Amino acid sequence: MLPHIGTLAAGERNAITDVPGVLVGHLTRADGPVQTGVSVVLPHAGDLYRDRVPAAAVVLNGFGKSIGLLQLDELGVLETPIALTNTFAVPTVATAQIRQCIAANPEVGRSQPTVNPLVFECNDGYLNDLQRMAVTAQDYQDALAAAGPVVAQGAVGAGRGMSCFGIKGGIGSASRQAGGHCVGALVLANFGREGQCLWAGQPLGPVLQQRLAAAGVPAAAGAAPEKGSIIMLLATNAPLDARQLRRLALRAGAGLARTGSVFGHGSGDIALAFSTAFTVPQDPRRPMLQLRLLHDALLDPLFQAAADATEQAILHALWHAQTVQGRDGHTRWALRALLPELEQPTR
Amino acid sequence: MLPHIGTLAAGERNAITDVPGVLVGHLTRADGPVQTGVSVVLPHAGDLYRDRVPAAAVVLNGFGKSIGLLQLDELGVLETPIALTNTFAVPTVATAQIRQCIAANPEVGRSQPTVNPLVFECNDGYLNDLQRMAVTAQDYQDALAAAGPVVAQGAVGAGRGMSCFGIKGGIGSASRQAGGHCVGALVLANFGREGQCLWAGQPLGPVLQQRLAAAGVPAAAGAAPEKGSIIMLLATNAPLDARQLRRLALRAGAGLARTGSVFGHGSGDIALAFSTAFTVPQDPRRPMLQLRLLHDALLDPLFQAAADATEQAILHALWHAQTVQGRDGHTRWALRALLPELEQPTR
Amino acid sequence: MLPHIGTLAAGERNAITDVPGVLVGHLTRADGPVQTGVSVVLPHAGDLYRDRVPAAAVVLNGFGKSIGLLQLDELGVLETPIALTNTFAVPTVATAQIRQCIAANPEVGRSQPTVNPLVFECNDGYLNDLQRMAVTAQDYQDALAAAGPVVAQGAVGAGRGMSCFGIKGGIGSASRQAGGHCVGALVLANFGREGQCLWAGQPLGPVLQQRLAAAGVPAAAGAAPEKGSIIMLLATNAPLDARQLRRLALRAGAGLARTGSVFGHGSGDIALAFSTAFTVPQDPRRPMLQLRLLHDALLDPLFQAAADATEQAILHALWHAQTVQGRDGHTRWALRALLPELEQPTR
Amino acid sequence: MLPHIGTLAAGERNAITDVPGVLVGHLTRADGPVQTGVSVVLPHAGDLYRDRVPAAAVVLNGFGKSIGLLQLDELGVLETPIALTNTFAVPTVATAQIRQCIAANPEVGRSQPTVNPLVFECNDGYLNDLQRMAVTAQDYQDALAAAGPVVAQGAVGAGRGMSCFGIKGGIGSASRQAGGHCVGALVLANFGREGQCLWAGQPLGPVLQQRLAAAGVPAAAGAAPEKGSIIMLLATNAPLDARQLRRLALRAGAGLARTGSVFGHGSGDIALAFSTAFTVPQDPRRPMLQLRLLHDALLDPLFQAAADATEQAILHALWHAQTVQGRDGHTRWALRALLPELEQPTR
Repeated sequence: MLPHIGTLAAGERNAITDVPGVLVGHLTRADGPVQTGVSVVLPHAGDLYRDRVPAAAVVLNGFGKSIGLLQLDELGVLETPIALTNTFAVPTVATAQIRQCIAANPEVGRSQPTVNPLVFECNDGYLNDLQRMAVTAQDYQDALAAAGPVVAQGAVGAGRGMSCFGIKGGIGSASRQAGGHCVGALVLANFGREGQCLWAGQPLGPVLQQRLAAAGVPAAAGAAPEKGSIIMLLATNAPLDARQLRRLALRAGAGLARTGSVFGHGSGDIALAFSTAFTVPQDPRRPMLQLRLLHDALLDPLFQAAADATEQAILHALWHAQTVQGRDGHTRWALRALLPELEQPTR
Repeated sequence: MLPHIGTLAAGERNAITDVPGVLVGHLTRADGPVQTGVSVVLPHAGDLYRDRVPAAAVVLNGFGKSIGLLQLDELGVLETPIALTNTFAVPTVATAQIRQCIAANPEVGRSQPTVNPLVFECNDGYLNDLQRMAVTAQDYQDALAAAGPVVAQGAVGAGRGMSCFGIKGGIGSASRQAGGHCVGALVLANFGREGQCLWAGQPLGPVLQQRLAAAGVPAAAGAAPEKGSIIMLLATNAPLDARQLRRLALRAGAGLARTGSVFGHGSGDIALAFSTAFTVPQDPRRPMLQLRLLHDALLDPLFQAAADATEQAILHALWHAQTVQGRDGHTRWALRALLPELEQPTR
Repeated sequence: MLPHIGTLAAGERNAITDVPGVLVGHLTRADGPVQTGVSVVLPHAGDLYRDRVPAAAVVLNGFGKSIGLLQLDELGVLETPIALTNTFAVPTVATAQIRQCIAANPEVGRSQPTVNPLVFECNDGYLNDLQRMAVTAQDYQDALAAAGPVVAQGAVGAGRGMSCFGIKGGIGSASRQAGGHCVGALVLANFGREGQCLWAGQPLGPVLQQRLAAAGVPAAAGAAPEKGSIIMLLATNAPLDARQLRRLALRAGAGLARTGSVFGHGSGDIALAFSTAFTVPQDPRRPMLQLRLLHDALLDPLFQAAADATEQAILHALWHAQTVQGRDGHTRWALRALLPELEQPTR
Repeated sequence: MLPHIGTLAAGERNAITDVPGVLVGHLTRADGPVQTGVSVVLPHAGDLYRDRVPAAAVVLNGFGKSIGLLQLDELGVLETPIALTNTFAVPTVATAQIRQCIAANPEVGRSQPTVNPLVFECNDGYLNDLQRMAVTAQDYQDALAAAGPVVAQGAVGAGRGMSCFGIKGGIGSASRQAGGHCVGALVLANFGREGQCLWAGQPLGPVLQQRLAAAGVPAAAGAAPEKGSIIMLLATNAPLDARQLRRLALRAGAGLARTGSVFGHGSGDIALAFSTAFTVPQDPRRPMLQLRLLHDALLDPLFQAAADATEQAILHALWHAQTVQGRDGHTRWALRALLPELEQPTR
C-alpha cells in the first residue's frame, strides 16, 4: 500500500495542482530509442511575462545544465512556465519559450526587456538516445496546450525516460495542508542507486537488488556511477517573498534525503519554490501589489509540508511508473512489477 | 539495540577521532541552573594558526550566532581549534581563542595577521540559564587541555544543556570508512520537536510523546516553537580542497534530514568539513604543499559516508545522553530512560 | 576643495543621518598606544530587537572577523544597533549588545529568542596596540548614549586608529537624493596602499608617496602588505526588502573601487544596507506591515546614489581625518596635512 | 591618446592571448537589421571536454540568460570553449557546443557524462533585430575555426551589435604582468548610460551627451533604461584553483566600476576567470595533476592586474569600435568619431 508520509493532510488531488491556479502539462515521446518528453508547470493561467510570480531556487548539487536560474536568483521572480525535459533538449525548449513569449508580447527584446527562459533537465540517456535530440519546439507547445489541473504521473512527459534507484522513475506529485496554506510538490525523479532506496524509511535496497538480479538485469546497469538528477518544484499559496521561498525550497532537500539520496556527485539536484499569492508586474509603471507577508516564525508548518510533499511525490513517481524499454534494449522496471507485495495493505 | 546506519563500516572508535590526528576535548559545567560547557575539535595537535587546514562550511539554516565563517568561506582554511558552546558564550570563547593564539604567536595582530576565531553555538536555554553567561575563558582552556582521541558523548561539554526532539540531546560522534578514506562526524545535537523523530527511519514521535506525557512532562515543554540548532563537524583524511569540502559538508544535511529534521526556522543548522590530508601555511614565505586532490567523480563514497556518519552521530548523541535537570526545574529525559525497550536486540 | 562625486544632490547634512530616523554615535579611546573606539549606527531610536528593520549584506572580500551576518542573511533583518570597532574587540562589543538587549527585554534567551549581535571590525593594529584589548562594554554603552543626527568624521570612534592608502583613515559619511528617496552611507575606511589612491578619479598615489617620503615616513610603513578593511553601511528610506537591499549593498563596492581599491586579499570589505521604510516585528503575534515595495526596474537611481555616496564618504573620511600618533611611535598623516593644496578651489 | 591604466606593464599583445595557449575567434554577422555574431575564447587548443581547466564565475548582477554557470560553480572547471553571443542566440550556440563535443567524443551522453555548454550573452537589440534569431550553429563553428592568438576588437563577433555608454561598444581585450604571471582580460561591453562614462577616471558623460545631440542622436536613444550587460573573461597562467579564481574574477568588477558602471539593474554583469596552469581530466581513471597552488597572500598583484586589465579592455572596446548602423535606422557612433580629440597625445 502506498504509504502516507508524515502527519499532515494531503490536498484533494494530493498533487501540486491543489495549490489554486497551478496547472501541469506533459508531452511524451515514446518510440523505440526515443523515450523522452517535456513537462510544464504553470503558476497561473495568465501571461507569466506580464504577471510574474515570486520564486527562488536552491542548488543542492549543481551537476546540471538548467537555464534561467541566474536571473531568477537576482530578481526573485519567474516569467515563463517552468519547463522540464532531457539534458540535451534544454536549448530547444528555451528557444521555444522565447518564441512563445514574443508571440504573446511582440515588443519583447525591442522596447520591452528580453524574456528569461526557465528550463530544468535530467539525463534520461539510459533509456533515451540523447544524441538524437528528438525533442522539438512543438513538443513544448503541445505540453503547454495540455496543461490542466489533473497531473499524470510516472513515465510521462519529461519523466518518460528517467530512472531512479536503478528502476523506473519519472514524474511524481503530492501536496500537504499546513498552517492554513497548501504546499504542492512536483518532482522529476531520476536519481539514486538501487542500494540507497528508502521506502518511507525502510531500506528497500537489498530486495531491489535481488529482484533486479532475478529479472536478469545486469548489475552494471543499476550500479553504474550515478548520472541522475532530480528537479523538485514547490508551489504554495502562502504569501512568501523570494527570500522565504528560498528557505522553503531547501526543505525539499530534506524530503529527498529521506528517500536515500545523498545528493550524488553526478546528480543535478535542484529545488525551486514559487508562491501564487501575488504577482509582480513586468512593467514598472503598473502598481506593485500591497502585500502582507507571512512572518518567518510561522514557517515551520510549511517547511514540514515541503519536506513531506517532496518525499511523497518521489514515492508517487516510483509508484506510478510503468516498465519502459528504450534504446539498445535497455529496460527500467516498474517498482510494482518488481515488488508486487508493496501493493498489499501492510505497514 | 543501537542501529548501524547504512552499509559502510565504522572506524575503530566509531568517532571523529578515527580520522588520524583529530582530537576532541570537553569542559562540562553542571551546577543547578548552569548546565552548559565547551567542546573543542582539533584537526591536528600542532599550531593551527601556523599550519592551517582546508575547510568549508554550509549553512542549512542561518538562525545562529556563530563566529568565523566569513573568513573561512573566503580563504578555505581554518586556523584555530573548532569550539562549540552556548549562544551567549560565543564572544567569551572567541576572545579566549584570540588570547590563546597570541600566547603561542606573539606577533599576531602586529607584524602577523590577526587570527580568525571559529566558535559555533546552540541555544541550551531550556536547561541552562543563558543569562548567567557562566562560560569562562578558562573553560575553553580546560577543554583544550582535555583534548584527546577518546570522545565522550551525550550530556558533556557543549552538549551538557542541549535538547533534541523534546528529550536530552548533546554530543554524538561516529565514523565511516569509504573509498580508502575515513570520514568522521561530531555533532552538537539540539534540534527537533518530539513528533519529528525518526530512529533509523522509524517514526519515534508518537511513542516519545506518549512516554513524555506519562513521565509528567508538560506538552508545552516539548511542543514549544523550536529554538534549537545543530552543528555538524566532518573530518576526513581524503585530500580534498575547500570546494570539495563544501560539497562534503552539505551531505551532513542528508544525514540530519533522515532523523526527521526539516531544518526548522529557529534552528541554526550548520555543517563544516575539514581535511587532514595537508596543511596551508599562514606564512606565504613557506612553501605550499604539492598535492594531488581526489577527483570529484570519486566523491560518492565519501558523500555516503558523510551522511551515514552524521545520522549515526545524532543517534549516538541521543543514545549516550543522560537525563539532566536544569534551571527552574526544567528536565530533559534521556532517550533510554524513556524507551528502555530500544536497548533490546530488535530490528 | 572637496570634490562632489557624481551629479546627484546630497542631503542636508551630506551624511547617513539624512535618512530620517538614523542616528550615529561614537566613543573614542585615544591614549598613547591605545588609539581605537566604537561607533554605532541605529536605524531608528526605538527597540531594534522588537522592531527589526530589513537589511542585507554583501561580502566583497571575507578577510574579516565580523559577527552577525549568518542570521542577517537568513532572516533579512537586523535586530541590534550596528556596531563598528577593532578586530579583537568584536567579542567584547557583541557581549555588550547581548547584555543591552537583555536589559531592555528580560525574556531574551528564555521565553524569547536569543538576540543576534551585529559587530563589524577593521584592523587598526598599526596605530593601536590590539593586544591590549582596550575596548570595554562601557565603551559600547557610551557610543550608544552619544548617538544623534550629527555625524563626527575622521579619526573618531572606531575610526580613531584606522589607516587608508598609507595615511589616516577613519569614519566618513555622505548622502545622495535619488528617485524621491535618500541613500546615506557611512564607512569605516581602513583599506588601500598609498599607490592605489584615486581622488575623484585622479591618481593621487605618486604624490602621496613623495610627500610621505618627504615627511620621513619609512616606505615600509605604507607599502607593507595590506591588512586593512572597509565596512560600508548604507541606509535608505526607500521601501526595499532584503533581496533588493543586497542588490543596493553591492553598489557600495562600485564606489569603493572608484577610490582605487581592488578589494585586496587581506582586506575585509563588507557592505550592509538597511531600509527604514518599515519594520518587522520580532513577535509573530504582532501583525506584519502591509507594504508596497519599490519595483526593481526603478532601482537604478538608488544604485547610482549608493555608489556615489560611498565614494563621497570615503573622501570625507580622508578629508576629515587628523594626523594620529599611536603605538611604538607609529604615525599616520592626515591627507590635508600632506597635501594642503587639495584645499584650494581647483578641479 | 589611449591611456594606459595603472602602473603594471601590459603583455606583448596587450590582449588575453598574452596568456600562453589562449585563443580567440570571432564570427561577425553584419547585414542591415542583422548586426550580431559569436566570439569564442579557448583556454587551450586541445579537447576541453577531456582536459578541463579550473574556472570560477562571479555574478555582479544577474539580469542575464547565460547558460553553464550552475555546473561550473559546483565543479570548478569549464569543459567547452567559452562562447559569447546575443541574448536570444544562447540556446542555438549551446546546442552547437553539444554537437561539437559529441562529434569529438562520441560517447558523450552515453557511457560518458553529458557536456556542460557555457554561453554568455548581452542584449544587442538596439542595433540587431533579436527576433530574427539570425545566429546559427555554423556561426559558432566558424568562430571556433577562426580562433587564434590575434584578437580583433571593437564591433566584431559577439560585439558587432553591442552598445556602451550610448555609443558603440563591443569586444575589448588587454593584459597585465604581475607577480611573475600574466592576467589577460576580454570583455563584451554593452553597458552603461552615456552620462556615466569615466575615461581613465575623467567624466566623459557631459561631452558625450553634447556630441551625440550635435550628431542628431535623439536623447531617448542613449537615455533609455539600461538593457545592457557586460561579460568579463579573465585568463591567467598563475596556478590558482576555483576558489582563488572566484576571488580573481570579482576584481574584474573593480575595473568595471572605474569606468562608471554601477552594475545597473537591467545589466547582466558577469565575470569569469580561468587558469591555464593545469588541467583536470574528465576521466577519473586518469591521474590528477600534482600541483602547487599560489599562496593566497600573494594574490594582490594579480588582483590589481585583473582590475586594471578589465578597465583597459573596456577602453579598448570603445576605442576600437567603429560606427555601426543597424535595424530601423538605429546608429551607434564610434567614440573616436564623436571625440576625435581623444586621439591627441594628451594626459
